[in-house]
Amino acid sequence: MINFNYNIPTRVFFGKDQIKVLAKEIKKYGSKVLLTYGGGSIKRTGIYDTVIQILKDNNISYWELGGIEPNPRITSVKEGVKICRENDIDFILAVGGGSTIDCSKVIGAAFYYEGDPWDLVSGKSRIENVLPVGTILTLSATGSEMDAGAVISNLETKEKLGCGHPGMFPKFSILDPTYTFTVPANQTAAGTADIMSHIFEVYFNKTEGAYLQNRMAEALLKTCIKYGPIAYKEPENYEARANIMWASSLAINGLLTYGKETNWSVHGMEHELSAFYDITHGVGLAILTPSWMKHVLDDSTVNYFVDYGVNVWDLDKDGDKFEIANAAIDKTREFFTSLGIPSTLTEVGINCENLEIMAKAAVRRGSLGNFKPLKAEDVLSIFEASL
Amino acid sequence: MINFNYNIPTRVFFGKDQIKVLAKEIKKYGSKVLLTYGGGSIKRTGIYDTVIQILKDNNISYWELGGIEPNPRITSVKEGVKICRENDIDFILAVGGGSTIDCSKVIGAAFYYEGDPWDLVSGKSRIENVLPVGTILTLSATGSEMDAGAVISNLETKEKLGCGHPGMFPKFSILDPTYTFTVPANQTAAGTADIMSHIFEVYFNKTEGAYLQNRMAEALLKTCIKYGPIAYKEPENYEARANIMWASSLAINGLLTYGKETNWSVHGMEHELSAFYDITHGVGLAILTPSWMKHVLDDSTVNYFVDYGVNVWDLDKDGDKFEIANAAIDKTREFFTSLGIPSTLTEVGINCENLEIMAKAAVRRGSLGNFKPLKAEDVLSIFEASL
Repeated sequence: MINFNYNIPTRVFFGKDQIKVLAKEIKKYGSKVLLTYGGGSIKRTGIYDTVIQILKDNNISYWELGGIEPNPRITSVKEGVKICRENDIDFILAVGGGSTIDCSKVIGAAFYYEGDPWDLVSGKSRIENVLPVGTILTLSATGSEMDAGAVISNLETKEKLGCGHPGMFPKFSILDPTYTFTVPANQTAAGTADIMSHIFEVYFNKTEGAYLQNRMAEALLKTCIKYGPIAYKEPENYEARANIMWASSLAINGLLTYGKETNWSVHGMEHELSAFYDITHGVGLAILTPSWMKHVLDDSTVNYFVDYGVNVWDLDKDGDKFEIANAAIDKTREFFTSLGIPSTLTEVGINCENLEIMAKAAVRRGSLGNFKPLKAEDVLSIFEASL
Repeated sequence: MINFNYNIPTRVFFGKDQIKVLAKEIKKYGSKVLLTYGGGSIKRTGIYDTVIQILKDNNISYWELGGIEPNPRITSVKEGVKICRENDIDFILAVGGGSTIDCSKVIGAAFYYEGDPWDLVSGKSRIENVLPVGTILTLSATGSEMDAGAVISNLETKEKLGCGHPGMFPKFSILDPTYTFTVPANQTAAGTADIMSHIFEVYFNKTEGAYLQNRMAEALLKTCIKYGPIAYKEPENYEARANIMWASSLAINGLLTYGKETNWSVHGMEHELSAFYDITHGVGLAILTPSWMKHVLDDSTVNYFVDYGVNVWDLDKDGDKFEIANAAIDKTREFFTSLGIPSTLTEVGINCENLEIMAKAAVRRGSLGNFKPLKAEDVLSIFEASL
């Protein structure tokens, strides 16, 4: 276990009707709010009306930025910054899933930066300060509601990159599982795959002695495996939505990472697919993950896959190591397929055309991952195996 | 899963040499420090000298309160309050285990209270404000380094009671596993039992749908079961000390409790033993726990014990339910015995003399626990079964 500094300052209000804390929480930080949201589902479900009513009842001024894209774009960030500056906004309330929240975090950071906001995402300039952000989560997936990171796409440069800053931790997040009852089955599936991928990225890791973290990761994986299919089939099952929602936050808020030297693999590859083809992030992850697992499976990693198979999938621990490992990987693919997620890139419209360009782009900041570091040729090989 | 408000503000600096952050962290909150510690082991190990040197090098004034008892007493609290008031102390630095930290928290609370500090512990008066507390942990057990509670004993009234307030969360805790290398084997064992008991208190719980929390609890129990015996036999095993140390904090910082309706059982019983006989808390818990488990095992609880047996002790899930449950309870007793912990009250000098008085006192605030609520006669029966 390596040294770590634990600090998760986000306050989470979890459960039914927790929206009641909204006005009081906002007023701790500001009085002029930028309300951000995505394609308008919050208007259909009534959450929008509820929020507006609360803001009005409490004399909180607000401006709106709707239409934030599923892979949120730097153009939306710029639009948000403009509204914030023109109206002296002092708080951003993100109502939606990870895309809306990520966009809001970077609006908050770019508000304090005079140059091109893309500089903060690309790493050309450092984030120094961030407007306070609060969230009302409507989709369990990215965990952005309780972490300090954001991922933004740039259609011009065909890039999708992540950035982070402690100021990007939401001040509070309202997690009401009933707000995810209307999430369609395919998005529920993709969200579950995204959560599991966050766990895989830190679970398959060679840091020695991080036993506690590994058992916690398995606890969360088992939660996704139990409740993903239930939420997929019974969208209004509170127990399933609640377990998935809380798992989404804990998967990436630091709990599984503290004490480990982490360096992600599959997200870096998937970001290239999303950047080029604008596919659903969770779907891209679900397609790539089993191929990645097969690619990195060798004598030096097999024991990690045995732990995974035995502890998560309840496989018999007495078999041949590689058989257990391969069975666990097959179980992973079968699980995603059972949720209706495509299992090949071809199915989502990606052919061999840009694979090499994307593979090279994936390693632009150096090789991917530290479980088994991936070079461009490894990424290409994983892409090809996923066609 | 029930509603919850998540808020764990303590910053944790975990790992070797994290003491380097001490001065900077203290200076965020104050400049006149009350340094608290227990029986002097920190002087033998050199931690005391290190801390004093850091305080001096950084021009931080300090006063000392040493000799805090293993079951910290209200008399020590009063002594601490006196020093704080006479010297305008603005920060309390607790260097030690849960006793020193608990005592420091209540000193911090009583500093702002004009009446008898015992009022705050007994619940006669409410805690309104608390001096900021930071900790340097030297014993993994109570989890006080990352929670907002404290337990104080009153020898006059023969009471040992708990109290809490959000202000009692330590502002920071320095968790360096090497600081626990010198903890004697018997205290390592008792600490492990204490951690496990915190987990049991919330794991054996009938809140429906808290699947994620139960799997997390099992992750921590497995950590204790794997590393308790290693730390017991190899005191300088960093991996074991690190896993146990982080488990001690996560067991009680809220992570396992959020989403559950909790109401503890065994701690309430044990506090009576400690209050009457001043025995080691973890030893009392280890003696009572298996007897409590046997007492509450019935048709309504057997499935919880089956989960425990199968998921934690790796018992065959296809056997008879009650056989699995009883085997899991036996495993629990054997585990504590393997760590050299006495298995009967008789061994720690407690006979049948005061059992009835203690049983009645244990339920002074109402029946104990909600897994299977215990009345005085239940407590008595558990005490008698533990003789």
